[in-house]
Amino acid sequence: MPEIHAHRRGALRTLLDDNGVDALLITDLLNIRYLTGFTGSNAALLLHAGGEAKTVFCTDGRYITQSDAEVPDLVRVLDRASARALASYAAGERATYSRTGFESQHVSVEEHEALAVRFADVQLIRTPGLVEQLRLVKDEAEIEALRAACAVADRALADLLAAGGVRAGRTELEVTRDLENRMLEHGSSGPSFGTIVAAGPNSAIPHHQPTGARLRAGDFVKIDFGATVDGYHSDMTRTVVLGEPAGWQRELYDLVHRAQAAGTAAVMPGVVVSEVDAAARSVIAEAGHGERFLHGLGHGVGLEVHEAPSLAATGVGTLSAGMAVTVEPGVYLAGRGGVRIEDTLVVRARRPELLTLSTKDLVAV
Amino acid sequence: MPEIHAHRRGALRTLLDDNGVDALLITDLLNIRYLTGFTGSNAALLLHAGGEAKTVFCTDGRYITQSDAEVPDLVRVLDRASARALASYAAGERATYSRTGFESQHVSVEEHEALAVRFADVQLIRTPGLVEQLRLVKDEAEIEALRAACAVADRALADLLAAGGVRAGRTELEVTRDLENRMLEHGSSGPSFGTIVAAGPNSAIPHHQPTGARLRAGDFVKIDFGATVDGYHSDMTRTVVLGEPAGWQRELYDLVHRAQAAGTAAVMPGVVVSEVDAAARSVIAEAGHGERFLHGLGHGVGLEVHEAPSLAATGVGTLSAGMAVTVEPGVYLAGRGGVRIEDTLVVRARRPELLTLSTKDLVAV
Repeated sequence: MPEIHAHRRGALRTLLDDNGVDALLITDLLNIRYLTGFTGSNAALLLHAGGEAKTVFCTDGRYITQSDAEVPDLVRVLDRASARALASYAAGERATYSRTGFESQHVSVEEHEALAVRFADVQLIRTPGLVEQLRLVKDEAEIEALRAACAVADRALADLLAAGGVRAGRTELEVTRDLENRMLEHGSSGPSFGTIVAAGPNSAIPHHQPTGARLRAGDFVKIDFGATVDGYHSDMTRTVVLGEPAGWQRELYDLVHRAQAAGTAAVMPGVVVSEVDAAARSVIAEAGHGERFLHGLGHGVGLEVHEAPSLAATGVGTLSAGMAVTVEPGVYLAGRGGVRIEDTLVVRARRPELLTLSTKDLVAV
Repeated sequence: MPEIHAHRRGALRTLLDDNGVDALLITDLLNIRYLTGFTGSNAALLLHAGGEAKTVFCTDGRYITQSDAEVPDLVRVLDRASARALASYAAGERATYSRTGFESQHVSVEEHEALAVRFADVQLIRTPGLVEQLRLVKDEAEIEALRAACAVADRALADLLAAGGVRAGRTELEVTRDLENRMLEHGSSGPSFGTIVAAGPNSAIPHHQPTGARLRAGDFVKIDFGATVDGYHSDMTRTVVLGEPAGWQRELYDLVHRAQAAGTAAVMPGVVVSEVDAAARSVIAEAGHGERFLHGLGHGVGLEVHEAPSLAATGVGTLSAGMAVTVEPGVYLAGRGGVRIEDTLVVRARRPELLTLSTKDLVAV
């Protein structure tokens, strides 16, 4: 889809004008993928505010065929030292690139030194986060990819549960592997992060790494996982119980479930992100468990599984339609067990569009 | 193994003295893992040249239990903004940390600004690559992990071939998934990079990503893959033929096999890395295929699957005993097929220790 990438480059040009630079050197590979569709491991892009003709893409000889296919619409330079090559290129066309921005939140101090030498008389301007600013609001092509990634995760979890894959006697690692394989079967190119399967007391560890510990009757089993489709990530957590839930488990689950619903209901354009966090957190605090909700409510999701905005008490900014975020409250009772329930959703005008569709009723397996 | 980490911190202190700094702020997570054993996703380490008592580790509240277990031997601060918290800490003990180095090849221009404000009167010194310098030469604990990762890959490939997993009619992606699952079964925590299974004409693409293309009788099938054990990576390539090899296939395979042997024989302490590349490359060039060996001969392998040293024509430096490197010549005949043969090995005094043990004879499956 070269059109969508050309469209994104057009949107970025408006930001360049706003920031008073002639061009932007883009070195972050995800940002390059967003702007060009290129999926290789070495590239740089010198995007000129004046248009496509002065915009130059650089990769190395390994990616000739791939960049022919993925980036058919831009001038291409081949050089292993991609960013430095474009810096030298800009120095040779100094009048055109006289004020060039760079991604100062990605470029290291050492690399900046090396680039500055090559840019010579070009003025290098710190312009952090311009492409990330665009990426905050997803276009429909991105939402389609997120939807597909979430659907893969939904199907894989349904298959796992239907096949009795979450059962007493299995280890956390076995369940992890089973779930990840089912995602691959449904078209995931890989887990979107290290899958969490946490059983019994381990479910009280927010970011537990799966171990050889065996699932036992009566355990909470917390499963936090995601699929990757076309570079976009899904992120979902479900917590099930092995066997008949005990009273404390029903109570804890119901609390987190209500907090998750309250957080989701607060997701609207124009709402300050910390207020979304507060909407869910207050439910948990009122139940006396405020100290046991140890992390922020959620985060943006897209080409990175964790990206802006941060839905946390310390988060800044407001939501806009088209942002994709998670809502994932949790309460963790050390030594006993914990519950987290998480969806990925898209901010829409009236109510958010839910991308992860697995039931949030308490499932006893 | 807290002792090994304490030992590595001791070795780093010698480098700090050499570089004239009182302390080093370490922010790269792999370097932190190397120095402390910590495997979480947020940490910073302020290592003082004077000893362990003034060395401070920082992570956030999610990792209290994990860092208790993994880093029992260092003073700990809990703060989400780990590096910045340690910068403020150092500023409060200015006499102790008056000249502090930072990892300028990892720290971004923006983060450096934020750190400099917090470090206040502490002098911040660019000290790129100090921990990486230590990591070049592996200690026996690291070699043991590399050996284990290579053994997992060897076993997985043997299983795959024994089970008839590489056969006509299967897709590249199916073979990929099968191989990756077998590595997981043998104890890999995940593939060490995106597994390459490239059949027929695709085998002529050096870094082909597996597709739905089906394997066919007569194909070269190039398989480049690795396992991860305790954070250490293996890297191995084998190229097999589906059915009876044709004359040109035997000839091409034999050429690459001889080049690989020549490269391996050149791996000795004190040898300039570009000469190792040349030892293999000259075999291929003499056969008239110099233009079809499109990449460097190999690279270091450890906590990263690609790390220093680079065994390439443009590589600098010499080999030392204890370095772990790959030797992976390839010849690629566009449209027909390609052969790459790759081992992971450790530089030893007399001859390298081979870690990947799968046969390099031409296998017809």
